[in-house]
Amino acid sequence: MNFHVLTLFPEMIEDGFNTSITGRALQNGTITLDAVNIRDYSTNKHMRVDDYPYGGGAGMVMQAEPVHLAYQALQQKLGKERLRVIYLTPQGNVFSQPMAEELAKEEDLVFLCGHYEGIDERVLEMIVTDYVSIGDYVLTGGELPALVMMDAISRLVPQVLNNEVSAEFESFHDNLLEYPQYTRPEEYMGKRVPDILLSGHHAKIEQWRREQSLKRTLERRPELLDGNEALTKKDKEYLQKLRG
Amino acid sequence: MNFHVLTLFPEMIEDGFNTSITGRALQNGTITLDAVNIRDYSTNKHMRVDDYPYGGGAGMVMQAEPVHLAYQALQQKLGKERLRVIYLTPQGNVFSQPMAEELAKEEDLVFLCGHYEGIDERVLEMIVTDYVSIGDYVLTGGELPALVMMDAISRLVPQVLNNEVSAEFESFHDNLLEYPQYTRPEEYMGKRVPDILLSGHHAKIEQWRREQSLKRTLERRPELLDGNEALTKKDKEYLQKLRG
Repeated sequence: MNFHVLTLFPEMIEDGFNTSITGRALQNGTITLDAVNIRDYSTNKHMRVDDYPYGGGAGMVMQAEPVHLAYQALQQKLGKERLRVIYLTPQGNVFSQPMAEELAKEEDLVFLCGHYEGIDERVLEMIVTDYVSIGDYVLTGGELPALVMMDAISRLVPQVLNNEVSAEFESFHDNLLEYPQYTRPEEYMGKRVPDILLSGHHAKIEQWRREQSLKRTLERRPELLDGNEALTKKDKEYLQKLRG
Repeated sequence: MNFHVLTLFPEMIEDGFNTSITGRALQNGTITLDAVNIRDYSTNKHMRVDDYPYGGGAGMVMQAEPVHLAYQALQQKLGKERLRVIYLTPQGNVFSQPMAEELAKEEDLVFLCGHYEGIDERVLEMIVTDYVSIGDYVLTGGELPALVMMDAISRLVPQVLNNEVSAEFESFHDNLLEYPQYTRPEEYMGKRVPDILLSGHHAKIEQWRREQSLKRTLERRPELLDGNEALTKKDKEYLQKLRG
């Protein structure tokens, strides 16, 4: 997986990606990251990349040309006519795990980061293939959303997670919330680990964890249970009991 | 607004916050940021902060004690018994603009960043006041979500945005998508700025922009129109016309 980020703050992208699992994946070459400074493609002698909006209004708008030139340089470098270009915007489709899975299949992904005033509409029409929002809240720019998307997508690229962790991740896939976790010591500030987890009885532990997941999902995110195809007959009976 | 982040990756928090508007707000003291390394509170001679999960399973779980000690040090430093502690987790309530508005009223906010294996449940029960998810996707840790939340919240703290930008931001508050933006030049690659934006007729420009917002919201996020109380009679007539 090769990530390419068109941004006015390349150092923010590089710093944000250097940690933990994504940092290791960069080091071993499983993924690559290329943060392109849009300002390097300004043809203005003061290196400006924005200007006042036509029709008036507050703030500045990023100009079409530097963004377009940065994109064309990338096309040329990669020898590809068509690229998948994701524009991070509150106007986009809301990012989700299935979208991450779909995007993880691409060889190259381009993230275009604007700032809140936006980018000239004409260049968006010319190059953007996907308008994506990470959630219904207002952020300063596209850099943090790009980092969030790259983190979620990286985890789905083969060999980025080791098998052990990957297996655990699968358990999330039933679209249920996770069960509570406990580690040493057995007692902390008077609170004991649930006895079942110390029993060594694996089948019972699995059942307890499944029930905790179901209970928590019912309490906090009940909409995840509606039409959930991963629920077994036993799960449904347990939910029935809880609702009873 | 004073942000406190309990994390294993303090440099990721500091680097991610230093840019653009949030960076300026830090410099002028409107907001403060304190990234606390949980590892500094390990009482283990190897500075370990995690251990195997009771009951088996993949991955490691962060231990209760270092998290608890880091929290207690913060209580003491701030001289506060009760603190608002946000745990970033896929199991949480989904972050939204109204939640950002509510949190922006606090004097201190503590963000607790776990990694995907999770934190011992007992310390969560003891200190966490809010469980929050930034969206329905799986991330490596809580650091990026904490940065996203702090960015959205910072923008709502008085004096972080200048008035001009703040006023523009208000326009988003009608819960409609933004209208398209254009800046110089008038023609780029054969594409012209819409004539209306060059007309100088402010009332007509406002009307055009409002109609573009409505049209875009109808096309891309129609659920935002349902029961939207900011819609005027004129807005509703225009939507009626679009729906044909």
